[in-house]
Amino acid sequence: MNIEEKLIKLAKLIRYFILVSTTEAGSGHPTSSLSATDLMTCLLFGGIFRFDVQKPEHPNNDRLVFSKGHASPLFYAQWAAAGVLTEEELMSLRKFGSRLEGHLTKEFNLVEASTGSLGQGLSIGAGIALNAKYIDSLPYRTYVLLGDSEMAEGSQWEAIQIAAYYKLDNLVGIIDVNRLGQRGETMYGHDLAAYERRISSFGWETIVIDGHSITEILSAYDKALKTNGRPAMIIAGTTKGKGVSFLEDKNGWHGKTVTKDELPKALAEIGEVDKSIRGEIPKPEDLMPDKKPSGTIKEISYAHDKPVATRKAYGNALKRIFPAFPDMVVLDAEVSNSTYSEIFRDAYPDRFFEMYVAEQNMAGIALGLSSRGKIPFVSTFAAFLTRAHDQIRMSQYSDANIKFCGSHAGVSIGEDGASQMGLEDIAMFRALLESVVLYPSDAVSTEKLIEEMAKHKGIYYIRTTRKETPIIYSSDEKFHIGGSNVLTESKEDVFTVVSAGITLHEALQAYEILKKENIFIRVIDLYSIKPIDRVTLKCAAEDTKAIISVEDHFAEGGIGEAVRNSLAEIAIPVYSLAVRKMPRSGKPQELLENEEISAKAIVAKVKSLVGKM
Amino acid sequence: MNIEEKLIKLAKLIRYFILVSTTEAGSGHPTSSLSATDLMTCLLFGGIFRFDVQKPEHPNNDRLVFSKGHASPLFYAQWAAAGVLTEEELMSLRKFGSRLEGHLTKEFNLVEASTGSLGQGLSIGAGIALNAKYIDSLPYRTYVLLGDSEMAEGSQWEAIQIAAYYKLDNLVGIIDVNRLGQRGETMYGHDLAAYERRISSFGWETIVIDGHSITEILSAYDKALKTNGRPAMIIAGTTKGKGVSFLEDKNGWHGKTVTKDELPKALAEIGEVDKSIRGEIPKPEDLMPDKKPSGTIKEISYAHDKPVATRKAYGNALKRIFPAFPDMVVLDAEVSNSTYSEIFRDAYPDRFFEMYVAEQNMAGIALGLSSRGKIPFVSTFAAFLTRAHDQIRMSQYSDANIKFCGSHAGVSIGEDGASQMGLEDIAMFRALLESVVLYPSDAVSTEKLIEEMAKHKGIYYIRTTRKETPIIYSSDEKFHIGGSNVLTESKEDVFTVVSAGITLHEALQAYEILKKENIFIRVIDLYSIKPIDRVTLKCAAEDTKAIISVEDHFAEGGIGEAVRNSLAEIAIPVYSLAVRKMPRSGKPQELLENEEISAKAIVAKVKSLVGKM
Repeated sequence: MNIEEKLIKLAKLIRYFILVSTTEAGSGHPTSSLSATDLMTCLLFGGIFRFDVQKPEHPNNDRLVFSKGHASPLFYAQWAAAGVLTEEELMSLRKFGSRLEGHLTKEFNLVEASTGSLGQGLSIGAGIALNAKYIDSLPYRTYVLLGDSEMAEGSQWEAIQIAAYYKLDNLVGIIDVNRLGQRGETMYGHDLAAYERRISSFGWETIVIDGHSITEILSAYDKALKTNGRPAMIIAGTTKGKGVSFLEDKNGWHGKTVTKDELPKALAEIGEVDKSIRGEIPKPEDLMPDKKPSGTIKEISYAHDKPVATRKAYGNALKRIFPAFPDMVVLDAEVSNSTYSEIFRDAYPDRFFEMYVAEQNMAGIALGLSSRGKIPFVSTFAAFLTRAHDQIRMSQYSDANIKFCGSHAGVSIGEDGASQMGLEDIAMFRALLESVVLYPSDAVSTEKLIEEMAKHKGIYYIRTTRKETPIIYSSDEKFHIGGSNVLTESKEDVFTVVSAGITLHEALQAYEILKKENIFIRVIDLYSIKPIDRVTLKCAAEDTKAIISVEDHFAEGGIGEAVRNSLAEIAIPVYSLAVRKMPRSGKPQELLENEEISAKAIVAKVKSLVGKM
Repeated sequence: MNIEEKLIKLAKLIRYFILVSTTEAGSGHPTSSLSATDLMTCLLFGGIFRFDVQKPEHPNNDRLVFSKGHASPLFYAQWAAAGVLTEEELMSLRKFGSRLEGHLTKEFNLVEASTGSLGQGLSIGAGIALNAKYIDSLPYRTYVLLGDSEMAEGSQWEAIQIAAYYKLDNLVGIIDVNRLGQRGETMYGHDLAAYERRISSFGWETIVIDGHSITEILSAYDKALKTNGRPAMIIAGTTKGKGVSFLEDKNGWHGKTVTKDELPKALAEIGEVDKSIRGEIPKPEDLMPDKKPSGTIKEISYAHDKPVATRKAYGNALKRIFPAFPDMVVLDAEVSNSTYSEIFRDAYPDRFFEMYVAEQNMAGIALGLSSRGKIPFVSTFAAFLTRAHDQIRMSQYSDANIKFCGSHAGVSIGEDGASQMGLEDIAMFRALLESVVLYPSDAVSTEKLIEEMAKHKGIYYIRTTRKETPIIYSSDEKFHIGGSNVLTESKEDVFTVVSAGITLHEALQAYEILKKENIFIRVIDLYSIKPIDRVTLKCAAEDTKAIISVEDHFAEGGIGEAVRNSLAEIAIPVYSLAVRKMPRSGKPQELLENEEISAKAIVAKVKSLVGKM
């Protein structure tokens, strides 16, 4: 049996697996899987893909990302054809508890990153390829299977730009142009030239083929692998539902399965299936990345009387801790002189990658890097991280290790005005499973918490401030995830003021003002908003009459709600000072006053409550 | 004085205004404004733009959007050169209370939409152009000034695709290719051919020019206006800081102003400025759109014993209410057969616009339509609305009137798994100033609330459910923004269970189960999560011992926190049942059980509390 005959048999087997598993599940995307079957059969079993099935974590394995995550039946079917999954397990598709979920997730360990929200896979693949070329210096290839509908997503074009810019000639995209989207034709139908024209104009090698011709497919991969200096895109004309005539190229079959009654008819069309055949995948060269040794971290050193912006401390920290965390990679979206990631860039230019004004792609690249064991630190303005919300959302389903930094938090950035102000970022990052949300108030705590971020795995978010703020901690103070600091405490404390970041300093000023009038407040630095220090808050709730939270953030989903929620079962009033008026241009202090989150506002609130309680 | 001489003088005046206003403000983006000055001077005063300055709301005015919102000094300067603003007012740039904010906002009424988060303006412009061509049937043109850095944003390429697809030949983009981004060169520098190649490959007319040659600029606009059947992009090579030699083409001057000391030197280079000169803008043809008369709305009619999915009721409602709201436009992102916006599409195809898989652009188009007085209803899966978070965030600063619908809320969508599940959408929409967040539980309340959404102005969000749910309301029940319904009530109520949507039905089942054991709970349908019915919740807090909130949503920022926060000062425990485990594939009921937000879980929680309280 020659290679082509074997591939034909394997493709039949895979089509068989797709049909039986989705019919059994009663839901899923068989037609979207059938259109890409020949493309993937050839990739995996045509001598192209290099993967050690016994060692899925081998650093020099090729990597495959299904950007069209709904083609999961194909992904599982092809690994069954490789002998990794059994037909029996395929029948557990979409069942509760199965590792074979409806859209690809990392429950199945051969999935590089969970997908299913379209248009994200090319960025993830670009991140994996970036790692190979510039960090691990390994020759492995990254392949990304793309749908045609999802080429409407702008994020794909961000990835296309970045991949060309970084000359990722170890990245191969394959577009399954099957013409039909979820509810009808895509914008371009089967106009393959429209894809070729556009993608080649961005500097990619483009190879247009019949996506069901084994010869053309193998030739395309061969050409892609010989391309130097630029990434390659195979643009394959395919038929949705290929292999079953009553499914082929028919609208209305997206996400629809063949019923149990119809199944025999469908399988008859596939023809005789050799269920014993399995495909072989050659192993990669046994190469390892150079392992950078861990070094020691220098001590922090901030003069106690010289205010420093926490955004600057972010940059300082990245540079300071890198020797101890040689897997760090730093990304920024063309604002490195504002986020201060430039401090790291200037010290370690090989580990800094400019992502330009394309935050979605930046987040996807970070996920790709995370999947290869790197620790990406990703920064832009807090407000602009909302641009990448869907990518961040999806990362939580990918066991990701990504550290986000949002600078220019709050109205206190001043004259630039609302568009640049992060006012919903705490809410966004809190509403992720197991995320960590940190908001340090001075340079010392910022640096310490960034060390903590690097030490622990998961999706972490740190919020930084534009303007300089006083140093309030000594260099030997300890900070931990889930901790807080009680900065002022006495037996006469009437109320507790909980804050973080820029408004913590307002709270400390309020403390001094009130002290002069013999009113004492407990001020808590809630530098860890999630997880939250419930114990300390509970103590304060027992010791004082009310809690006042103060934040340079909208009222919903931020510090106030986090505090209130952590004491959900405790009978103490919680008052929330937050941004409730339309934010606008002005001097920072004017804006804090206007939003009533300033020292003056805290004093007024305390006094009004003293009157009542 | 011929036209060219006048334009040269006006350009000088505008450059003068840009420099003096930003130097006075001490912050701002003069160099980004200077590079586009000639382009805008020619547009506004070269006989191209048609605008009735006395009637800025005239429906047939041309429209101008600054996608590069940081070039606000230019925008204000050009309107000063038109006689709309005085030099004195220009000196109020960025000051607290001034309508001339740091990035363009609708505080200044000639701004079509607030910008400043890059890459959003082309979508907004496309929405305005779509309105002209397909809805108002008016010949006005829409111009969008774009920066080169922001062409890295994928959202621009979404807009480019859609504008070509809809043949928006009344849309003209102008890219100010000044080479320098915020912290160095863009990916393409001054390679104008790279912009031309890419944009023309998407089907746009492209016109490459020297962005400082009056002749070439005027000729480009002329050519753009003569283009039929496709949108036009003027790709202008410019110099950042043009007009002042020590600023021209120099890195490090982004967002930096000329100091008061340096100002005379800069002004000397501009040369003699005729401060009395003002530019004229011809008026548009006095054409009005056909005003569709308002019709009457048919009554709702749902059989009480036939469950209907609220997502279907969304589609039914759009179709039913359109006669009374002839300004409605419906947009969907290739999932209209899932969101059921297809019901509207089939009834009123002229008012439905397929946006394909590009949610960011869809949100921007909606903002453009809103700016032209239309009422856009925008739908996709709740999870995918996170893709447009930054656009939605920016819309809140634009006095927008947009109705968002997120379907497939929660884990209860079942086998498709986590990527398709909206679990953070309530948090996202709550954290917007003055947003309204609705989550009806049955078809009747869905239809009634959609009527309310259409009646009132603002950013509204409605969350819909995938599966069919029972009808629990009669057609004459009333629902209002900020309301709730107490569904079960008695003097023996021990606890209150607050819920909405899919889990409200679980709560009602729990009520029946507990009733059999003589335990009574008050069940409240919190169909309006924001604004929240504090009065009813407060009553329940007084009458019962604890509140249990139940939601098919993550624990942060959703119903639980909204409820807890509304009773912030009241001493009652609030327990929150929400999604806290990794979501996954499975049958809907299995997943509700797994997340402990099912009837069974509610019963268990109530019983555990009965034991303790």
